[in-house]
Amino acid sequence: MITAGIIGATGYVGVELVRLLVAHPGVAKLSLSSVSFEGQNIVDIYPNLFGQLRGKTDGVLSGADAVVEASDVVFTALPHGIAEKYAADCIAKGKKLVDLSADFRFDEDEATFTAWYNKPYEYPAVHAESVYGLPEMNREKIKKARVIGNPGCYVTAATLALLPVLEKSLVDTDGIIVDAKSGITGTGRNPSEKNNFSESGESFAPYGIGNHRHQPEIARNCSKAAGKDVNVIFTPHLLPMSRGIIATVYAKLEKPLSADEAHALYAARYADEPFVRVLPKGSTATTKNVRGSNFCDISVHTVNGGKTLLVVSALDNMVKGAAGQAVQNMNLLCGFEETAGIDQVPAAF
Amino acid sequence: MITAGIIGATGYVGVELVRLLVAHPGVAKLSLSSVSFEGQNIVDIYPNLFGQLRGKTDGVLSGADAVVEASDVVFTALPHGIAEKYAADCIAKGKKLVDLSADFRFDEDEATFTAWYNKPYEYPAVHAESVYGLPEMNREKIKKARVIGNPGCYVTAATLALLPVLEKSLVDTDGIIVDAKSGITGTGRNPSEKNNFSESGESFAPYGIGNHRHQPEIARNCSKAAGKDVNVIFTPHLLPMSRGIIATVYAKLEKPLSADEAHALYAARYADEPFVRVLPKGSTATTKNVRGSNFCDISVHTVNGGKTLLVVSALDNMVKGAAGQAVQNMNLLCGFEETAGIDQVPAAF
Amino acid sequence: MITAGIIGATGYVGVELVRLLVAHPGVAKLSLSSVSFEGQNIVDIYPNLFGQLRGKTDGVLSGADAVVEASDVVFTALPHGIAEKYAADCIAKGKKLVDLSADFRFDEDEATFTAWYNKPYEYPAVHAESVYGLPEMNREKIKKARVIGNPGCYVTAATLALLPVLEKSLVDTDGIIVDAKSGITGTGRNPSEKNNFSESGESFAPYGIGNHRHQPEIARNCSKAAGKDVNVIFTPHLLPMSRGIIATVYAKLEKPLSADEAHALYAARYADEPFVRVLPKGSTATTKNVRGSNFCDISVHTVNGGKTLLVVSALDNMVKGAAGQAVQNMNLLCGFEETAGIDQVPAAF
Amino acid sequence: MITAGIIGATGYVGVELVRLLVAHPGVAKLSLSSVSFEGQNIVDIYPNLFGQLRGKTDGVLSGADAVVEASDVVFTALPHGIAEKYAADCIAKGKKLVDLSADFRFDEDEATFTAWYNKPYEYPAVHAESVYGLPEMNREKIKKARVIGNPGCYVTAATLALLPVLEKSLVDTDGIIVDAKSGITGTGRNPSEKNNFSESGESFAPYGIGNHRHQPEIARNCSKAAGKDVNVIFTPHLLPMSRGIIATVYAKLEKPLSADEAHALYAARYADEPFVRVLPKGSTATTKNVRGSNFCDISVHTVNGGKTLLVVSALDNMVKGAAGQAVQNMNLLCGFEETAGIDQVPAAF
Repeated sequence: MITAGIIGATGYVGVELVRLLVAHPGVAKLSLSSVSFEGQNIVDIYPNLFGQLRGKTDGVLSGADAVVEASDVVFTALPHGIAEKYAADCIAKGKKLVDLSADFRFDEDEATFTAWYNKPYEYPAVHAESVYGLPEMNREKIKKARVIGNPGCYVTAATLALLPVLEKSLVDTDGIIVDAKSGITGTGRNPSEKNNFSESGESFAPYGIGNHRHQPEIARNCSKAAGKDVNVIFTPHLLPMSRGIIATVYAKLEKPLSADEAHALYAARYADEPFVRVLPKGSTATTKNVRGSNFCDISVHTVNGGKTLLVVSALDNMVKGAAGQAVQNMNLLCGFEETAGIDQVPAAF
Repeated sequence: MITAGIIGATGYVGVELVRLLVAHPGVAKLSLSSVSFEGQNIVDIYPNLFGQLRGKTDGVLSGADAVVEASDVVFTALPHGIAEKYAADCIAKGKKLVDLSADFRFDEDEATFTAWYNKPYEYPAVHAESVYGLPEMNREKIKKARVIGNPGCYVTAATLALLPVLEKSLVDTDGIIVDAKSGITGTGRNPSEKNNFSESGESFAPYGIGNHRHQPEIARNCSKAAGKDVNVIFTPHLLPMSRGIIATVYAKLEKPLSADEAHALYAARYADEPFVRVLPKGSTATTKNVRGSNFCDISVHTVNGGKTLLVVSALDNMVKGAAGQAVQNMNLLCGFEETAGIDQVPAAF
Repeated sequence: MITAGIIGATGYVGVELVRLLVAHPGVAKLSLSSVSFEGQNIVDIYPNLFGQLRGKTDGVLSGADAVVEASDVVFTALPHGIAEKYAADCIAKGKKLVDLSADFRFDEDEATFTAWYNKPYEYPAVHAESVYGLPEMNREKIKKARVIGNPGCYVTAATLALLPVLEKSLVDTDGIIVDAKSGITGTGRNPSEKNNFSESGESFAPYGIGNHRHQPEIARNCSKAAGKDVNVIFTPHLLPMSRGIIATVYAKLEKPLSADEAHALYAARYADEPFVRVLPKGSTATTKNVRGSNFCDISVHTVNGGKTLLVVSALDNMVKGAAGQAVQNMNLLCGFEETAGIDQVPAAF
Repeated sequence: MITAGIIGATGYVGVELVRLLVAHPGVAKLSLSSVSFEGQNIVDIYPNLFGQLRGKTDGVLSGADAVVEASDVVFTALPHGIAEKYAADCIAKGKKLVDLSADFRFDEDEATFTAWYNKPYEYPAVHAESVYGLPEMNREKIKKARVIGNPGCYVTAATLALLPVLEKSLVDTDGIIVDAKSGITGTGRNPSEKNNFSESGESFAPYGIGNHRHQPEIARNCSKAAGKDVNVIFTPHLLPMSRGIIATVYAKLEKPLSADEAHALYAARYADEPFVRVLPKGSTATTKNVRGSNFCDISVHTVNGGKTLLVVSALDNMVKGAAGQAVQNMNLLCGFEETAGIDQVPAAF
């Protein structure tokens, strides 16, 4: 049993971590901080938690340093560019850290990070040892790591959709199309015109065409899997719903695959993965079937006479796309059962 | 043909006025102002208007004084407490003004206004002559007025649901219950946690129990209709949808009415009203059937063995509950056909 | 560890039971039937369950008799009027049954049941011993029962909102108003114009005014609590969302209560209830905070100068309003921890 | 002034036609039929129309032949495969017909129609003279036609997104990707599990991957515009909202275009089109801005280093995607102003 800490507990990702960790069998105590609400009780901000802290915390939000001090594993759920110093601190004190911002998603590649996030690395040594926290790519490295960069939500959906064919060099790597759609929780807790119900309800549109920050992260994962540069066209859209991401991915096959062959390839690649469900042939992935759970559902299709692979990848952006995957990483870091605390059965509706 | 002006054109009520007035057959020119966006073009803020200004305005947002100067009728769609000086100015210059805030909803009753809006009257002479703009109560007065206080959205629904029985003294006036539900556009353009889709979608709750500012306005209208003090219990709720208000109203009947008698009473009261549709017996009012239109649909029911009257009143909070009613008032002020520019047929879905 | 069976596993209530029971620590095996889909696999109908049967069932849908045979506790999730024979059968075979239709909600009061459901009792002996499954009213009786009538969704919300004041005779029992609003899952799996998204989205209306079948059930519970006849005006409305019920309840107080007194009364009444959360003063119950969980949140207010009590009661209609409460009853019947398998932490969004 | 008739007035497309035609300045009388509701009044089925028939019809639903008899222009809004005989009848009687099914979307190409709709042509002579009703492609032909095949909803969005570059042979025509998303009204009035709010709300997924009937229609239009065979990969998705379609279209450019060049090309192509709004550079098309109107908004982007053209095309599937475009065709057929009756200003929310 460990003590887990959350720095930034009152953002959407933070409170989703609280939901998962108060019920986690390996977590004895929980320590919470918030800059905006320091000194207040998280239950007053999120009344869904009323009576649900289960003796693991009194709910009072402290400062960040107190969380580091109290915890064995620290989660940082902060705006980009702030987690580095906590990571360095955790390493110094023999603690582990899972960061949910972009800060450790580019490892030693400071140039790309800086180009997209306008900030240099201040603790390069931490980046030199941090591990990208996608268990389906890096499970063994994660187990031994001290600092984890938890992947982006869109990125998880897109990468899992492409790993099997990229690893086997089966698709044209110039101009893979990731047409992705996200629920509005992806815009976070800060209210904006974008997430105002009056404008986002009964409405749908793409945004950030050609310049969304998840593009370089997807491209990086794909290039690692393929062993060469992969060119990804990534178009995010905002859905009139709260939770869920789908990526509809199109890739030209180097040589045609039958639908059976394509399905078999994915089924084999993910056979031992606890959180990737390759759906039976004929099914199509949908956000509904994964809502509230840590699953990524994948359906595999071929179109244009078998010349193009079409993969649909669906996950809950707040769970497998954020907090759930962070807990999965914690489970690996701590030697817990990989599914501990994130084995919720998704509801039918 | 007149020139109409909107002070506060970029709030939700303001832009809904623009939608109605650019297509209004009696409006030749439109003059627009905005504090937040002065100097910008309204089309850049609301691209739904792209190519739709129809030669009535170039879309550039000026200051408020320029609007008063240019216009025959001025609409003020501003936060509470600002319209008074524009009203005084309009009177001085021989122009007319329709205010969509609460500033002129209490006429000479400064005490109630101040108690609920924390602000004294600065131009009492204007209040002395202003008219409350509910055509179904005050049509003839409106025609001759110079300053109109456009009613609140909830208030319009609640008042229209109760006028017929209050005017005839048929119900117990202590503790009439108005259980009302509004779409999220009622919270306006300013983003907040309340209107963030992530929290307001798939969610429903009352708010402002016992202390919403529309309560005294409803009570005031009811008291005027009844000729004595009426006690209203008003509970607003926020619906996970953009447009629409329903008031479910419960009033104890002084003596039982049959369903037929109750229906006949309402049908007779509103027989000549162009925007109140008393539905056939057996039908129930729903927000869907009035969306985007200026109608208030009313269905009349009796319950508890005929001892209690139950009235359902539905309207679009942005149209009959705000901008549409303001245009109805303008039509009366200017001698236009009362339905001019607000005769949209509601869609089925 | 028991074997649980669900007759009618493919309706909405049925599949929600599956979600809860596959993860229930006291359930070793699960047996499922469906008339519509006999012989098929539930995973093909509800792909959210893909890979989630956890060794408790192979998912194949049998006939109802096979479920009775295989199970220690049987859940019937069927249209009204069918469960009686299964109940008789269970009693004969020493098994227990929790029925989620209305069939056992009126105990020995056949007259009321028949008046509202158009069907006489065929097995009166079963009704003579069945127990109404609202643990907050009947916990000790439930523990010893063999047949449980699980309460209606609206009914649970309304009854819990009123129990404390009715038991103490604090309110006028003629004309208590229950203005209730439900998510669309309440209309069930059968598609209809009513639940077609195109008509129910962006729409809100009451239905069944004065003649909804939950009215007599609410009145019956209230009368039992009050020890005399209680007259309830019940108005259900359909919300444009999937899950959640709120009842906004208005009752005239026999003598005024302060807000503190009213709150203290509810807090005391439900102090030991694991699934009723009386919110702190100043909070308002909302469906969002209970979604997916077995909680009923209650907030207590006084209005109209303290003369009227206003209680807001919120629950998830599929959980505390149906499947979750059925599992709570199973836990009581079997001597499990009352919260076993239904202790999900509600999410913030 | 003409008499217009609608055969199939109670489906979603039919009732949307009623909404537009009761307010159309060129329509004096309206004649309505329905197989399902013959003899009933449309107002009882669609109470949004209560009091809104404006003297053009009494609302009584007759049989189809009576509509043909009474009308100058007939709209058929029927399932596929039924309109042919009415078209032949109209030609014989000197009337005009606009069909909103797929029956006349393939002109003389019976083979393709039969392959996708499983039905041979029964009146080939009618198909030989029918005109495909996309005014932006066929305006002059439409004006002289007697029978019009109104385009599919997805098809209109996709075709308008691609016409300018196909006509100029600027893109690779093998494997153009149309990733399209539609609101739920596209599934029509018949309730199904697909459009049940409980399953379609808070949910998103593709459907009909690789085999949707709008694929051959899009390909046909594209091939005509390009003057050679075009290969289109079309993936429709269902959005949790009522109205609106977006197509996100990806096409490899034969040689790179700057963003300015691409925008200029579209702006020039559609400069005189009353219902295509090419948005200013930097804007992105969204369904919100066209809801309820006959506009198709188009935004033009280049991605992947200028090697790929990305076009976003948004329209209201019930208006420009169906009933509005049919009225636009009627206007052309009858020599009315092309925008008559379909010049609604879209609302901001």
